[in-house]
Amino acid sequence: MASNSFGDLFRITTFGESHGPALGVVIDGCPSGISLSEDDLLPDLRRRRPGQSAMASARKEEDKPIILSGVFEGKTTGMPITVIVENKDQRPQDYDLLRKAFRPGHADATYAAKYEHRDHRGGGRSSGRETVARVIAGTIARKILPIDTKVIGHTIKIGPHEAKTFNLESIEQNPVRCADPSAAKQMEEYVLELKEKFNSTGGLIEVRVTGTPPNLGDPVFGKLKARLADALMSIGAVTGFSYGSGFDVAAMKGVDYISDRKHFGGILGGISTGEDMVLHISVKPPSSLGEVAKRGRHDSCIVPRVIPVAEAMVAIVLADCYLLQRTYANFTNHPSS
Amino acid sequence: MASNSFGDLFRITTFGESHGPALGVVIDGCPSGISLSEDDLLPDLRRRRPGQSAMASARKEEDKPIILSGVFEGKTTGMPITVIVENKDQRPQDYDLLRKAFRPGHADATYAAKYEHRDHRGGGRSSGRETVARVIAGTIARKILPIDTKVIGHTIKIGPHEAKTFNLESIEQNPVRCADPSAAKQMEEYVLELKEKFNSTGGLIEVRVTGTPPNLGDPVFGKLKARLADALMSIGAVTGFSYGSGFDVAAMKGVDYISDRKHFGGILGGISTGEDMVLHISVKPPSSLGEVAKRGRHDSCIVPRVIPVAEAMVAIVLADCYLLQRTYANFTNHPSS
Amino acid sequence: MASNSFGDLFRITTFGESHGPALGVVIDGCPSGISLSEDDLLPDLRRRRPGQSAMASARKEEDKPIILSGVFEGKTTGMPITVIVENKDQRPQDYDLLRKAFRPGHADATYAAKYEHRDHRGGGRSSGRETVARVIAGTIARKILPIDTKVIGHTIKIGPHEAKTFNLESIEQNPVRCADPSAAKQMEEYVLELKEKFNSTGGLIEVRVTGTPPNLGDPVFGKLKARLADALMSIGAVTGFSYGSGFDVAAMKGVDYISDRKHFGGILGGISTGEDMVLHISVKPPSSLGEVAKRGRHDSCIVPRVIPVAEAMVAIVLADCYLLQRTYANFTNHPSS
Amino acid sequence: MASNSFGDLFRITTFGESHGPALGVVIDGCPSGISLSEDDLLPDLRRRRPGQSAMASARKEEDKPIILSGVFEGKTTGMPITVIVENKDQRPQDYDLLRKAFRPGHADATYAAKYEHRDHRGGGRSSGRETVARVIAGTIARKILPIDTKVIGHTIKIGPHEAKTFNLESIEQNPVRCADPSAAKQMEEYVLELKEKFNSTGGLIEVRVTGTPPNLGDPVFGKLKARLADALMSIGAVTGFSYGSGFDVAAMKGVDYISDRKHFGGILGGISTGEDMVLHISVKPPSSLGEVAKRGRHDSCIVPRVIPVAEAMVAIVLADCYLLQRTYANFTNHPSS
Repeated sequence: MASNSFGDLFRITTFGESHGPALGVVIDGCPSGISLSEDDLLPDLRRRRPGQSAMASARKEEDKPIILSGVFEGKTTGMPITVIVENKDQRPQDYDLLRKAFRPGHADATYAAKYEHRDHRGGGRSSGRETVARVIAGTIARKILPIDTKVIGHTIKIGPHEAKTFNLESIEQNPVRCADPSAAKQMEEYVLELKEKFNSTGGLIEVRVTGTPPNLGDPVFGKLKARLADALMSIGAVTGFSYGSGFDVAAMKGVDYISDRKHFGGILGGISTGEDMVLHISVKPPSSLGEVAKRGRHDSCIVPRVIPVAEAMVAIVLADCYLLQRTYANFTNHPSS
Repeated sequence: MASNSFGDLFRITTFGESHGPALGVVIDGCPSGISLSEDDLLPDLRRRRPGQSAMASARKEEDKPIILSGVFEGKTTGMPITVIVENKDQRPQDYDLLRKAFRPGHADATYAAKYEHRDHRGGGRSSGRETVARVIAGTIARKILPIDTKVIGHTIKIGPHEAKTFNLESIEQNPVRCADPSAAKQMEEYVLELKEKFNSTGGLIEVRVTGTPPNLGDPVFGKLKARLADALMSIGAVTGFSYGSGFDVAAMKGVDYISDRKHFGGILGGISTGEDMVLHISVKPPSSLGEVAKRGRHDSCIVPRVIPVAEAMVAIVLADCYLLQRTYANFTNHPSS
Repeated sequence: MASNSFGDLFRITTFGESHGPALGVVIDGCPSGISLSEDDLLPDLRRRRPGQSAMASARKEEDKPIILSGVFEGKTTGMPITVIVENKDQRPQDYDLLRKAFRPGHADATYAAKYEHRDHRGGGRSSGRETVARVIAGTIARKILPIDTKVIGHTIKIGPHEAKTFNLESIEQNPVRCADPSAAKQMEEYVLELKEKFNSTGGLIEVRVTGTPPNLGDPVFGKLKARLADALMSIGAVTGFSYGSGFDVAAMKGVDYISDRKHFGGILGGISTGEDMVLHISVKPPSSLGEVAKRGRHDSCIVPRVIPVAEAMVAIVLADCYLLQRTYANFTNHPSS
Repeated sequence: MASNSFGDLFRITTFGESHGPALGVVIDGCPSGISLSEDDLLPDLRRRRPGQSAMASARKEEDKPIILSGVFEGKTTGMPITVIVENKDQRPQDYDLLRKAFRPGHADATYAAKYEHRDHRGGGRSSGRETVARVIAGTIARKILPIDTKVIGHTIKIGPHEAKTFNLESIEQNPVRCADPSAAKQMEEYVLELKEKFNSTGGLIEVRVTGTPPNLGDPVFGKLKARLADALMSIGAVTGFSYGSGFDVAAMKGVDYISDRKHFGGILGGISTGEDMVLHISVKPPSSLGEVAKRGRHDSCIVPRVIPVAEAMVAIVLADCYLLQRTYANFTNHPSS
């Protein structure tokens, strides 16, 4: 059922295993005439890349995108855009100890049961490396959205440490991508401490969208909140999604809920209002621990690396809905109807 | 983009407004030979129906399902199954005061902006009444699943009151559908108190699936957790979704996370393990308050009524994945390949 | 796989059996603000209706359309439009002789094998009666197209008799819907002759589209010619499809082919040029003959009744492509891209 | 609308331009455990390759397939299979004369109008080279079908020359792929004669399927004949499709039509009967003539090269329907339903 595709008008199909020759994405439905080069794809890919700090795995591949189709003389042509990234830094021998073992908390066992075979090389499609393709598609999705639409992810919790302030400029200035510089410091120390013990931690991400186009989302099964949930829950490590006041509404009274439009999270009736959108996702702690973590290339906390992936998935949903809304807005009907 | 359809192999298309002549659903892809009558659809519809207690709105329509197609001599035929429910108890005059007003926290304004027209009759498709169609489809979905697969929703929180025990038999014995009889009592009182003040409250629902078939869900964009999130977030009042340990993972260490398989919620790598599945959704407080609540037919707490809808959406996702898994399981290949 | 749905943005889902309570269609993706009433649907339904002449079956149902959803105060709302037609003139007893028999050339045997059950009541979904739903959707599709887009079907061959002239006004003035009045006379006599012998005949239909919007169709698998083929070959009795010079190209030289743009049929590279489109479909002779034809209600030639169905399917394809092209035409990109 | 994808369960997405870096296909939904190597893909690719005889264009690229994903240790894994073919023999300078010219009968003008840009390099996606991806997917589709299902295409007409006998072994022994050796000789001479004059010819192809699995195809819009029409009409040069007696039915009487099951073409009610299937498609003469044909690499008759593409599209449809039928056949329902 096309389970490696996502989106309707702006439709991405991702492929590739973490230890195969290449990963990539085909994007069908991107309008023609949009400027696009391989260099445009690098900044977001670098944000996703591991090995940026002591916190992360030491895998060093460069993630150099190669555009195979859909671009001519620096512009998209309306044809499917294909971008691949070759896997250069493969070290399958590191994974030999996994040939027979099933790692607890991993997809190994369910994949083996479902597909009736075993690919022990670091997770295959269940590896976080698959998200390279999503980040590429997300960069292109952002180019379709209005220039003032900004999708910004940041870490609001890691272990016991929570962000208390929001300073946009701080986010990319610390390895945990936290908008609160002092909480960031605590989070970083906490992660390094766990790393030394081959242990790991989960966290919480907030994605804010400013300059959101209004009228996005389509009742009743294409509601914006449902599409965003689908998109973000499709990321391997994500265990929960909410928008606006999220799970806090359980304890709220109606009069309090409607007293502040921030509780609505920029979505009413499943349709964007044009106000800022606020989304939250929870990220589980990596399950590669102890001996496994020592041998392979594993992160103690993937929260900061999930951020560009989450942003990409949100941008893809918004671009898809934005294209669809172009179809229906101001439908000027002919005289007879 | 077929935004009123959901599912792939077991595909439902819902239609109808709360104040139009009828609501209904077309189900395409239901296997032939399954016994089905209009009476089979009544129990779940009754669970969804308002007016069952003082807590709920006084709307009294009977929700009598009429099967228009797809069933012959008591069995499904493999053709699309259409079921409608006529709207008998229409009182649009109650809504006349809404003709020009936009209710805060409702879909009124976003629908009017998006569709460039105004249907003031109690919400149209954004009304909770649309869920009648989902509940019908859910009953049929359950018939496709193995007989020992049970999808059970119950209230775990309303306002400040939380369930502390789980007694399966208690759920349908109290109007808040709580498995903890003493918490149920507190919840009920709390809701009635708010009702008197034309105020309202949110709450939290848990859906448990026992006897889950293994191997359901399809990486990377058809992950079971993503499909369930999509399905449940498409319900109007739902603001958050999680599975397993959900948002609690943010504070968890890896060694603790993998120490108890209950944290995984029955899903690993996006695929069902066959263990019990545990899902949570948050439900916002109804926004019809004060004068509006006095005039129209509105609930102070819709949590118990959302439960059969949530169960239905979960059953639909599981039936869809179950059919798909039939295609691929034990694919015995011919000699040459 | 949603096999009872057709189209992407303008998506129809049909349901109902020839001898069940009702047939109908749900149309998802129709823009809001289009005027629509039940009366608007009558003219095309009447053109499809049997019993208009001695040639056709004597079934007399009125085909009165009932709009169940998606229209408010005479305008479409953007919500799914559902229209049903009740089956009033059911005479299943006529079909009792079919309870065990499989009619040669009918779908009876393949349906029974595939769905592992038998519905002997006149064909169920394989009955021509299913096309009522298509004709309704086609009327609505025409309302979306520019006012000067005309979709006109006419009979160009029945048995040995071929149309030699094209007189637009003649089409609806003879029971065979032939644009050549003198050929029409011959065709009509030929059909009546066969009817007396409980025999039947096939024929050939041409569908012309004038005022075609350019730029419709999407390479490589959404080519306009492929979508039209899919749409028209989904009609039960149709055995062949071609556009432009069709099968005649097999004997053509390149220099001759490109010498007259009429050979292209208004489609190049799978995309409409804006010129007149010309399509042809072959219709097989009805297989209800001899004793079966005597008892049931059957036509000796369904060609004239297929015409409004073929027009409807063409209009549905064009409306769908037209909506999609609105998304992409003049995509004005923001400065940064 | 995913216009570069085809199929539901066995879903292919093709990408790449004739003069870009590479062409390829992603296949989503192929079962796991099927043996697959790059070498397996060569025989069909060689049959599609130009330059096999004096009749065809002189382009010499090798079409070496590279599997990027979805295969591990010689078996499919259930993950998306990606295969690319690099474009080695690019000579865009040959096309410089086309930079401003629009070739009559080509897609140049419609692509330029629709996508609002011009890619003059030999057609881009509208080039026959795009079919490399389809042939690769077709080879894999055949591996899913039962071993005794054979899809065999052959030329039955080129210009005035028609095949009169059917000798299976002859097909691949002559450059026009005709099963009648003496007609083949005439066809070949006819094509060479036209080639010398930089002229071209159309032709007719028959595709026979033997060992067809029964019960394939899904009423009413997934009828096997409609899916096959869609698949085959999506090939650039194809102008008509028919099955069984095709357009001949227009002149047939009912008693004659039902007298020979061969007239049904192996499909009744849109569902395969299990008998041999017979399909016909017409192929237009190439439009690159005169000066253009002298400079570029163009064929005078593409009929024999369309054959492996047509076979591939038929195999893809059958594999897709075959997988779907696995879902529904023998659906053993649990006791309660």
